[in-house]
Amino acid sequence: MFIFVLCLYFVMAKDTGAKISVKKDEDFSEWFTELMQKAELADIRYNIKGFPVYRPWAVRSIKKITRLWEAELEARGHEPVLFPLLIPESNFHKEADHVKGFTPDVFWVTHGGDKEFEERYALRPTSETAMYDMYGKWIQSYTDLPMKTYQSVNVFRYESKMTRPFMRTRELHWTEAHNVFATQEEALKDAKENLEITEKLLFGVMAIPHIFFERPAWDKFPGADRTFAADVLLPSGKVLQLPSSHMISQNFSKAFDVKFIDENEKETYAWITCYGPCHSRNYGALITFHGDDLGLRLPWDIAPKHIVIVPLLFKGKEEMVLAEANKLKEKLSKDYEVIIDTRENVTPGFKFNHWEMKGVPVRIEIGPRDIENQEVVVFRRDISEKLSVKLVDLDKHLQGIKETFTENMKTQAVEVIKEKTKDADTAEDIKKFIEEGNMVRTNFCSVEMDGEACAEIVEKDIGAEVRGVMFGKEEKAKGKCPFCGKEAKCVVYIAKSH
Amino acid sequence: MFIFVLCLYFVMAKDTGAKISVKKDEDFSEWFTELMQKAELADIRYNIKGFPVYRPWAVRSIKKITRLWEAELEARGHEPVLFPLLIPESNFHKEADHVKGFTPDVFWVTHGGDKEFEERYALRPTSETAMYDMYGKWIQSYTDLPMKTYQSVNVFRYESKMTRPFMRTRELHWTEAHNVFATQEEALKDAKENLEITEKLLFGVMAIPHIFFERPAWDKFPGADRTFAADVLLPSGKVLQLPSSHMISQNFSKAFDVKFIDENEKETYAWITCYGPCHSRNYGALITFHGDDLGLRLPWDIAPKHIVIVPLLFKGKEEMVLAEANKLKEKLSKDYEVIIDTRENVTPGFKFNHWEMKGVPVRIEIGPRDIENQEVVVFRRDISEKLSVKLVDLDKHLQGIKETFTENMKTQAVEVIKEKTKDADTAEDIKKFIEEGNMVRTNFCSVEMDGEACAEIVEKDIGAEVRGVMFGKEEKAKGKCPFCGKEAKCVVYIAKSH
Repeated sequence: MFIFVLCLYFVMAKDTGAKISVKKDEDFSEWFTELMQKAELADIRYNIKGFPVYRPWAVRSIKKITRLWEAELEARGHEPVLFPLLIPESNFHKEADHVKGFTPDVFWVTHGGDKEFEERYALRPTSETAMYDMYGKWIQSYTDLPMKTYQSVNVFRYESKMTRPFMRTRELHWTEAHNVFATQEEALKDAKENLEITEKLLFGVMAIPHIFFERPAWDKFPGADRTFAADVLLPSGKVLQLPSSHMISQNFSKAFDVKFIDENEKETYAWITCYGPCHSRNYGALITFHGDDLGLRLPWDIAPKHIVIVPLLFKGKEEMVLAEANKLKEKLSKDYEVIIDTRENVTPGFKFNHWEMKGVPVRIEIGPRDIENQEVVVFRRDISEKLSVKLVDLDKHLQGIKETFTENMKTQAVEVIKEKTKDADTAEDIKKFIEEGNMVRTNFCSVEMDGEACAEIVEKDIGAEVRGVMFGKEEKAKGKCPFCGKEAKCVVYIAKSH
Repeated sequence: MFIFVLCLYFVMAKDTGAKISVKKDEDFSEWFTELMQKAELADIRYNIKGFPVYRPWAVRSIKKITRLWEAELEARGHEPVLFPLLIPESNFHKEADHVKGFTPDVFWVTHGGDKEFEERYALRPTSETAMYDMYGKWIQSYTDLPMKTYQSVNVFRYESKMTRPFMRTRELHWTEAHNVFATQEEALKDAKENLEITEKLLFGVMAIPHIFFERPAWDKFPGADRTFAADVLLPSGKVLQLPSSHMISQNFSKAFDVKFIDENEKETYAWITCYGPCHSRNYGALITFHGDDLGLRLPWDIAPKHIVIVPLLFKGKEEMVLAEANKLKEKLSKDYEVIIDTRENVTPGFKFNHWEMKGVPVRIEIGPRDIENQEVVVFRRDISEKLSVKLVDLDKHLQGIKETFTENMKTQAVEVIKEKTKDADTAEDIKKFIEEGNMVRTNFCSVEMDGEACAEIVEKDIGAEVRGVMFGKEEKAKGKCPFCGKEAKCVVYIAKSH
């Protein structure tokens, strides 16, 4: 049976359907562009630059990602809110660093119908300046704290860099959590708890290995005291910043008058944190990291469908095969999200390629001989294994795939980036490693503001960025900074970024 | 036990907590305003008019409503998409009726950072002009049809009328389905199928009685051939338009070049429908319709929590009661969404009022004597019934409440509006009935454009609107139009509107 199906596969494969014309590790950019079209994920022909249209196969996964994050936030006591998209310019001006950091990136609404507004309204690039004004009104006493909220909304950044669907766009789909505490300790605990959510979902569910950094002083979120972020090194050889968590601390509390009467009846400014997992970008990292030359590979809990059934419609046996395939679909749908491809105008080979391109974890092929033999052919996308499986064993076999699928992808992913972090002591070595698509670990003078001059050298001479010091694991510096020759105070990681 | 708890209730009730100071049927407007604050649903102090902040208790229900609609759409083959919020002004100008209908209501984005754009971008008031341009690119052949999509997004209308949270706002949260068919018949079938979704959810789950109308020619969705909408008569004596379904037909196909090669290899313009359930507004109708002088009343599947447990913390017995209450919570959480109110700084009476204000369907009170007697007190919000229930009977009792709760609300709701539709033949009677808060059924000259003059009289003299003819049930006109005296061609419904 196995050999028979293989033969059929190669015979039918003349009409192969969608295939990517380049190899991912030879021309990443073209690979990504073709993936967008051929897996039907995004369309960049919408007539505003940086605003792609997201298609059903991608949106289904983005919705799953969003719900996973919402569930984790709710389990930790965050409550959903909905704040307006528009933010008055005057709100924006209340926190000096924030306005400086975000103003160049803001889209402005100036008119309603024919009327010009007296004040311009920003499309939120992030919601601190919308929310904290209201928090000041809601929070009176320590009994109102902690207050932990989230909203899943669209945000807007007028990006000047080159845009690319999911990875860097002018409209983003994210969840933002904004949280208020009575003490600094509680706020820091929350910021760390948010990193745990990132770890659980980004690696645990999405199989994306990443490193948590604390960003250097010159690269913090505008208005924050400390910024922590997960960086993932993509096959492009560049890192992408994924969910970031910020100690907003008291800067915004002072700007927006978020204070409360504490247990000793003293008026105190509150401590604020925020956390912003961007789901369209998480999805971008996911498909970029796991995709291969055949298309998408999707972790089990992110795939829109777990199983595709392809009935092999031999002449005269169509009805019988379709009936069995539909029966199988109904049975499997109790435990899995199942789709059946009954198209008559394309070959099985075309369908195989189509669903491999879309990254469905499991394909089940069923033809007249399989039915006769009481078996099916099962293909799994993670390790490209294709086996004949007796129907009586199918439940157990699929359960086995479900249990190992994402775990396999994790192992593969860790393998891919294992060799990609290099140690270097000199500017020359750093440059060489970076150009070869690595991330580099090096001693560095300082991640306080006095180190910014060296970071500028890194940017100018190497075209890369100082991403920060590893968070949660202290790494002791020794020797000199490769750029200014001063005593190194810290160990930093350098990489190109998307 | 029952009497004992009642006594406790009245003793503690000195500190009663949040209560609405007016009666709903005496001062609807003040009732609504106080409900917003006291049930913590919305805050209108955000500093842009018409942009309220939605708070957790409301957002939880709105999310449930959204997911219910998404599930029904997906079950009928609609696939999720995400189109950009911004629409170029030139797209907007492609369909003449649409641009005329929507331009006065559009928010315009003119700048990104310091840069003024060459073309203005609209914040979508609805997405036809964003989507159909792309549909023209995606659809080539009849095999691409039907194509049924949906997206759950925010939309914007620069409303000139008075705004009110949920009911009429400048930012709305809705799901919009946009669907393309090969034939007019299929399109009309879809438009009707969408009304079935409305019926199933709006009445079936949300217990809101409504009437489907086909709108008069002068009140169709701009660019549509036919518009169907569900109107609900609220206790304010005004109707609110809830989900509407439109036969966009071929107007937009021609404007945006949405055509396909049909089975006979002939190029044909596609038939389009759209459907727009607005969830923030559905929620507004829900709370307005079902709320009473004590606050919210929420149908079972919309309530953020089904059951609140209030432990009665008598001195010296706190620990024992809390332990039992928590045990009960854990047990009930398997089947229900349960919250426990363990606050120490407020009385039980305060808590009772608080959760009645928030419309939690069931309250369970548990104190030392209840524990001794192996029972609890169960209060249900739909019929204000309060009973002592033995712990051994609790499962069955709660199951009984769950099964009858929304059904009771439906019966009550139908009762409320039963008498509210009046027949009238003269302008005077119509005016009188309208002023008494009714909807009026009357003979009318025409719902084609030649009837618009009479509709203007209705608006000017009565301050009400011709909502259309009933859809799905033909009502034969007889006699004259009360406004122009011409032979009546149809039976219409007239009402004030929100």
